[in-house]
Amino acid sequence: MLVEGKPYRTVWAEGKSHERPVVRMIDQKILPFVFAIHDALDVSQTCIGIKDMTVRGAGAIGATAGFAMAQGFAEGDPEAARKAIEATRPTAYNLFNATKRVFEAGDKSSANSLADARAEAERIADEDAASCEQIGQHGAKLLEDGMTIMTQCNAGWLAFVDWGSALSPVYAANRQGNKVKVIANYTGPRGQGGRLTAWELINEGIENVVQWDTAVAHSLQHEEVKLIIVGADRIATNGDVANKIGTHGVAIMAKRLGVPFYVAAPTSTIDPDCPTGEKIPIEDRSGDEVLYQTGQTDDGKIVRVRITAPGSKALNPAFDVTPAELIKGIITQKDIFVPDRIQEAL
Amino acid sequence: MLVEGKPYRTVWAEGKSHERPVVRMIDQKILPFVFAIHDALDVSQTCIGIKDMTVRGAGAIGATAGFAMAQGFAEGDPEAARKAIEATRPTAYNLFNATKRVFEAGDKSSANSLADARAEAERIADEDAASCEQIGQHGAKLLEDGMTIMTQCNAGWLAFVDWGSALSPVYAANRQGNKVKVIANYTGPRGQGGRLTAWELINEGIENVVQWDTAVAHSLQHEEVKLIIVGADRIATNGDVANKIGTHGVAIMAKRLGVPFYVAAPTSTIDPDCPTGEKIPIEDRSGDEVLYQTGQTDDGKIVRVRITAPGSKALNPAFDVTPAELIKGIITQKDIFVPDRIQEAL
Repeated sequence: MLVEGKPYRTVWAEGKSHERPVVRMIDQKILPFVFAIHDALDVSQTCIGIKDMTVRGAGAIGATAGFAMAQGFAEGDPEAARKAIEATRPTAYNLFNATKRVFEAGDKSSANSLADARAEAERIADEDAASCEQIGQHGAKLLEDGMTIMTQCNAGWLAFVDWGSALSPVYAANRQGNKVKVIANYTGPRGQGGRLTAWELINEGIENVVQWDTAVAHSLQHEEVKLIIVGADRIATNGDVANKIGTHGVAIMAKRLGVPFYVAAPTSTIDPDCPTGEKIPIEDRSGDEVLYQTGQTDDGKIVRVRITAPGSKALNPAFDVTPAELIKGIITQKDIFVPDRIQEAL
Repeated sequence: MLVEGKPYRTVWAEGKSHERPVVRMIDQKILPFVFAIHDALDVSQTCIGIKDMTVRGAGAIGATAGFAMAQGFAEGDPEAARKAIEATRPTAYNLFNATKRVFEAGDKSSANSLADARAEAERIADEDAASCEQIGQHGAKLLEDGMTIMTQCNAGWLAFVDWGSALSPVYAANRQGNKVKVIANYTGPRGQGGRLTAWELINEGIENVVQWDTAVAHSLQHEEVKLIIVGADRIATNGDVANKIGTHGVAIMAKRLGVPFYVAAPTSTIDPDCPTGEKIPIEDRSGDEVLYQTGQTDDGKIVRVRITAPGSKALNPAFDVTPAELIKGIITQKDIFVPDRIQEAL
């Protein structure tokens, strides 16, 4: 997608195929205030980039993990690299799917394991971008000109290599001349909705408005929201979906208030070994993410401020699980599936 | 209640009964970082204090409005004062109840209208504190030692003259030796849960933890929450309740996930002329409250930072309406009522 008129992917690798690649990623910790590229030179640096959320979002984490795995082959200890990468973040299945694919490509290689691992990592990134573009084509059929939709967190192009999942239908519809308005839930504590989704949509010239996470039920009743589309970090084979914290609540409110709730994700998000949502590991992050917020002062400095009572502690689960029965459809690159038939997408 | 060992009310009046009273209030805009008393010398200053949320919370707004109305008699134009006070904030019924009572007390006075108005305003403040203390006695019967409960926003003593509504049962139980743990929803955009509720509970030595507004459904499933108690800004005669934005969503999630949901409020919150929640006016506040957060830097400065994409806009409804059917009981100073019999509390 375009950033100030220039095409970008969220994450990519540079360097000759026989060398350890440099993993380059848009720094999502300082967006939307500063647009900058962060370089991770080795496995350890790339792991930090995933862990501290310089890169985040299921597909982008997957592609980054694939490139990190290729770095692991260059460093000569792919087993250790895989272990380190898989310890960064537990929930997004795309990460484990990518490390597995790249590890096996390098491991089985008869000629040049680094080159073969690197090629597989590039394939993962390209497939992610292509799948997301296809998700847009399927999902755009649900959208009509003038419609208002709601989304949680950021499942736009910044969460993938390109296009995004939940926002890809919006981008596709926009290119078809169907203007959709998006209500972006702030999605604290990290606020990816108010920071990243709003930034993406402003860049693409798509009408949008941010709301606090408390305003969901009220706006579902009063803002003529026709549809909710969210992303996914892991999909169980029964159609239960782990996604950013708050998603389950939005789905419950949508059900009660009669607004159709869709999930959009490439099939690389489906975990074939996970029968139900209860089995999905949920990451607990530092309570400091809740106790403080980072933002920009009027004179342009990025600072962290405490927003809660001194001495308080916080819970900070990063994801939750939405049961299949609350989901009307899962939009993949292949088609839109009812949740309990999501296995057919594999 | 105590602040660093010293007893305080949230708002009170000072000055001789034949003079215009000074309205003194704990400055809730700079809490929990700084504890300071804000003085409002005339009707206009008191109105600003209500409007900019130096004082907030249904009962505290009511008491402040009563004192402001007494200031209006001192200034010689009580009609104009009443109009100005009633234009500050539209949702909390306690405000309209207080202006009406104090206006009528002064208006009907045969001797000294200022003194009679002032006496009525004092009565409102005292009744608020006494009612809230009684709410604690009734509500404490629902609480058991070791129980975890959840609350939205701040309906503690800072939201009333003393004791609070939703938190009063917790304070009562604590004094009875039953230790309750409170999960305080941050309740953005103003964050009264993470700022004020957490501050109150820390001051009273009651175990508490803050969570982001997105974490409600997840913690209702995983934190053994036995009960939810929230406050109210206006109660319709059919039992529908307007309260801080997010409350309706919490009630919907509680229903689905099987956690009993209670409202606590003095009967001064019940609007006898309001048949259903649909008739309750909902205040829209500036979108800047969503786009920015105010907090304290590591070196102690209180600053406002932008937390959303530059150029973005925001929706900011300040309240929502929870339908009676989602509410298990309304705890008043008289008793606990099922919502559709709340008229019996009048």
